[in-house]
Amino acid sequence: MAQKPTIPKGTRDFSPFEMIRRNYIFDSIKNVFIKYGYQPIETPAMENLSTLTGKYGEEGDRLLFKILNSGDFLKNIDRSDFEDSNLNKIAAQMCEKGLRYDLTVPFARYVVQNRNDITFPFKRYQIQPVWRADRPQKGRYREFYQCDVDVIGSNSLLNEVELILIIDEVFYELGINSAIKINNRKILAGIAEYIGQSDKIIDITVAIDKLEKIGLEKVNEELVQKGLSKESISKLQPVLKLEGSFKEKFAKLREILNDSETGLKGLDELKLIFNQLDKLELKNNLALDLTLARGLNYYTGAIIEVSAQDSKIGSICGGGRYDDLTGIFGLPEVSGVGISFGADRIYDVMNDLDLFKEESVSTSQLMLVNFGEEEGKFCLGLLQELRKAGIRAELYPDTAKMKKQMRYADLKGINSVLMVGEEEINEGLFTLKNMKTGDQEKVDLNQLIGLFKSE
Amino acid sequence: MAQKPTIPKGTRDFSPFEMIRRNYIFDSIKNVFIKYGYQPIETPAMENLSTLTGKYGEEGDRLLFKILNSGDFLKNIDRSDFEDSNLNKIAAQMCEKGLRYDLTVPFARYVVQNRNDITFPFKRYQIQPVWRADRPQKGRYREFYQCDVDVIGSNSLLNEVELILIIDEVFYELGINSAIKINNRKILAGIAEYIGQSDKIIDITVAIDKLEKIGLEKVNEELVQKGLSKESISKLQPVLKLEGSFKEKFAKLREILNDSETGLKGLDELKLIFNQLDKLELKNNLALDLTLARGLNYYTGAIIEVSAQDSKIGSICGGGRYDDLTGIFGLPEVSGVGISFGADRIYDVMNDLDLFKEESVSTSQLMLVNFGEEEGKFCLGLLQELRKAGIRAELYPDTAKMKKQMRYADLKGINSVLMVGEEEINEGLFTLKNMKTGDQEKVDLNQLIGLFKSE
Repeated sequence: MAQKPTIPKGTRDFSPFEMIRRNYIFDSIKNVFIKYGYQPIETPAMENLSTLTGKYGEEGDRLLFKILNSGDFLKNIDRSDFEDSNLNKIAAQMCEKGLRYDLTVPFARYVVQNRNDITFPFKRYQIQPVWRADRPQKGRYREFYQCDVDVIGSNSLLNEVELILIIDEVFYELGINSAIKINNRKILAGIAEYIGQSDKIIDITVAIDKLEKIGLEKVNEELVQKGLSKESISKLQPVLKLEGSFKEKFAKLREILNDSETGLKGLDELKLIFNQLDKLELKNNLALDLTLARGLNYYTGAIIEVSAQDSKIGSICGGGRYDDLTGIFGLPEVSGVGISFGADRIYDVMNDLDLFKEESVSTSQLMLVNFGEEEGKFCLGLLQELRKAGIRAELYPDTAKMKKQMRYADLKGINSVLMVGEEEINEGLFTLKNMKTGDQEKVDLNQLIGLFKSE
Repeated sequence: MAQKPTIPKGTRDFSPFEMIRRNYIFDSIKNVFIKYGYQPIETPAMENLSTLTGKYGEEGDRLLFKILNSGDFLKNIDRSDFEDSNLNKIAAQMCEKGLRYDLTVPFARYVVQNRNDITFPFKRYQIQPVWRADRPQKGRYREFYQCDVDVIGSNSLLNEVELILIIDEVFYELGINSAIKINNRKILAGIAEYIGQSDKIIDITVAIDKLEKIGLEKVNEELVQKGLSKESISKLQPVLKLEGSFKEKFAKLREILNDSETGLKGLDELKLIFNQLDKLELKNNLALDLTLARGLNYYTGAIIEVSAQDSKIGSICGGGRYDDLTGIFGLPEVSGVGISFGADRIYDVMNDLDLFKEESVSTSQLMLVNFGEEEGKFCLGLLQELRKAGIRAELYPDTAKMKKQMRYADLKGINSVLMVGEEEINEGLFTLKNMKTGDQEKVDLNQLIGLFKSE
C-alpha cells in the first residue's frame, strides 16, 4: 500500500459532521447580517500582489502566499539576483499574484474599483477564507474563514451602535456568553497628549496592553525603557489604575483629558455609543477597556474586541472605525467602520464549551432498506414521493446484509429506517423502525409523509 | 488620483446583485443534494503538488497554480538548472503546494486519507471554487465554482439513476430546460472491439465526437488518417448512422455488439438505467448519445453530460462512473460515480435566458428614514422590535436630505420606507410609504410587524 496522502500543514479537511456545525455558525452570522440590512459580496481568492503588499506591515508581507507566474517565470530574473539570493526582488518578479490575507484590503480595493456602481453608505458583508503563511499551532491555521461586516461612506456613530447590536445578537444566538470590549483611538491619542508624549502613542498602548499579564510595576519599567520621562509615567498612573463602572471611568477620563480636544471627542463618541446601547439592553457584557489597541495603525475611532467569557481562546471578533481605508487605493476621505467574526475560533469555543445543539438537518430523515433488485426499483418511486413532499430520504444503494445497512443508518445518524420487502409492497404498508427506541409500526405512504413532513 | 486598482485577469468580483443570484443557484443545488441523502465536506484550497500533479494530463499540470514556498525558496535550486531555464524542475523545487484544479482528486485524496472514519457507501457533496491557469475568455474563468456530488463504495446502478434524478430536479427547480445525454464507456469499448480496433478506442471516440460538427464524410477521412483499416471503418458505419428512439438504438446496438462481452454489459447497464427512469417520468429530456466521451481516461461505466436546450453555452453538468479513482492514492477497487454542476455556466445560462426570479431576500424589507439625532435614537429601539420579529430592516445612518435617503432605498431595492419624525414618535403612529406605488398609510408598531412578518 502506498503512503497515505496528506494535506499541507496548517490546512484542514472538514468532515460532514464538522461541516454541519460550521454551516450552523456561518448561517447564524449571515442571518443576523441580513436582518441588519447588510448585503453580500465576494472577491477573488487571488489578488494582485501590488494590492496586498505593504498593507499589513513587514510581518504581513512575509506571510503572504505568493503564486508563481504561469509560463516562463524566470524570464525577468537577473543572474546576479539569483546568485545573491535576492529573495524579495526575485519573488516580486516571479509572482504577480497572491492569496488574500484578510477581507478588509480586498473590500477597500473593491469599493475603489467599483465606486461608480456602489450606493453609499455601502453596507456589505463578506464570508470567505483567507490565507496566511503563519507557523501553524493550536487555534492558528493557514487557511481560515473571516466573516466581515462593514459600512463605508457614513460617519454616523449609529453604525458603531448597530455593529455592537450585531455582535450581541450573533453570540446570543450561538449561545456564547461573551465580553465585548470597546475603546477609542482618539482617547488613546488624548492620553498620549496629556502626558506630553504624543509621538509615543504606540509604545504606550503596547505597554498598557500588557497590564493584565505582567502587572503595573513591569509596565512602568517598560515605559522607562521606551524612553518616557519620569513625569509622563507619573501622569499616566491614574489612567493605568482606572477602575469601576463605565460612568466612573468616564468621569475620571473627562478630568484627565480636559485639555485634549481629540481626547474629549473620543470620550463623546464613546458616551453616545454607551448611552444608546444602555437603552437597548444588551444580552452580553459591554465594557470600556483602555488596554484595547488592536490594529492601531489604521483604526481612527472606535476599537472593538470580543472574547468568550468562559474560554481561554482569545479574540473571536474584532474591528473598529477607519477614517481613510480606501485612501491607499486613491479614494481618500471615505470613512468606514466594521467588524470581523473569526468563524474557526468560534467553532473551537463552541466545541470546547459543548454549545452545539443536535442538528436535525444533518442527515436523511429516513433510510429505505434495500431488499433486492425488484424492491429497490419500487423504492425509487417511493423516494420520489417522499422527496416531492420535501422529506430527506435515501435508499441503501446495494442489496447488502440487513446488519450492514442498519449499521450505515446508525453511523450516519439516520433516526428512522423503512422496510420495503415484497410483502410490504403488495400490502402497501411498510414497516417503519425507530433506530433509537427500536419501536416498529406499519404505515402507508400518506402516513409516512405526514409523519416526516411535520418534523 | 492614483490609478484604479484591478484584479487578476480571469477572476471576478461579485456584487450584492450577483451574489444573491449565485446563492440562489448554490442553495437550489445544495437543497436537492441534501434531500437525496448527500452530506457536505470541504477540503483546503491548497493541496500538496504531489497530490495534484499527473492527475489531469500534461495540459492539466501546466494549468495548475503553484504557490511559492515560504522562506528561502531558492535554497534547493541548482545554478545549472537556473542557467538552463529548467522550468519544471525549478518550479517543483520552489513550490510544494498548488491550488486545487477540481474537486474530484481532492475528494479521492480525502477518502483515502480518512478511510477509517468514513461510512461507506459515502455520499458526499462539495461546493467550492477551483483554479485553473487557463487563457481567460467568455465563459471561461481562472476561478470558478464546482458543485460535486459523488457516491463512493457502491457498485449499484441505482446510484446512476439517482444522480440523473438529481440533475432532473436541479434544472427543473432552476427553470432550465435541459438535455441530459448518457453514454457508457463499455459500449464504446465494445464498438472498438467489434471493428477490431480495441487499441484505437480514443481515436474512434474523438472522431465520433465530431460527427455533428464536421459530418460523416470528414469523420471517415479522419479515421483513415488515424490508421483505421478500410474494413474497420466500413463496420463502423452503422454505428455512426445510428438513429431513432432509445429502444431502436438499443436493438441495433444489441445486434452489433453481440460478440462483445464488455459491450453487452454496457448495454445492460444502460438499459437498467433507462428503464428505471422511464417509470419515474423525468421533466427534462434524456437520450443515449454515443458521441459523448468526456473524461474517457478515467470513466469506466456511465458517462453523463447536460446542456441547456435553449442556450449555446456548452456543458453545464457532467460526470460518470469511475471504478478506481482512489487507486492513485493507494486504495484500489473502490468504485465511485458522481456528477459536477458548473455553477458559473449555469449562472450565465440563466442570465442569458432571463430565468432569474425577483428575489425577496435580497435586501431589507423596510428602511427607516433618519430625521435627526433624537429620531435616529428612537429608531434604534423600533428596529430591534422589528428584527426580533425576524423582519429585515435598517435605518439610514446619517441625517441626510430626504431625497438622498429615498434614492438610497430605491437603488438598494428596498420597497418600503417608514417616516419616524417627532410627530410620529409622539403619536406612536408612523407613515409607511410604498416605494413602488407611492401609497402612504399610518401604522403603529404592531401593524407594522403584522404587515412585514407575513411577507
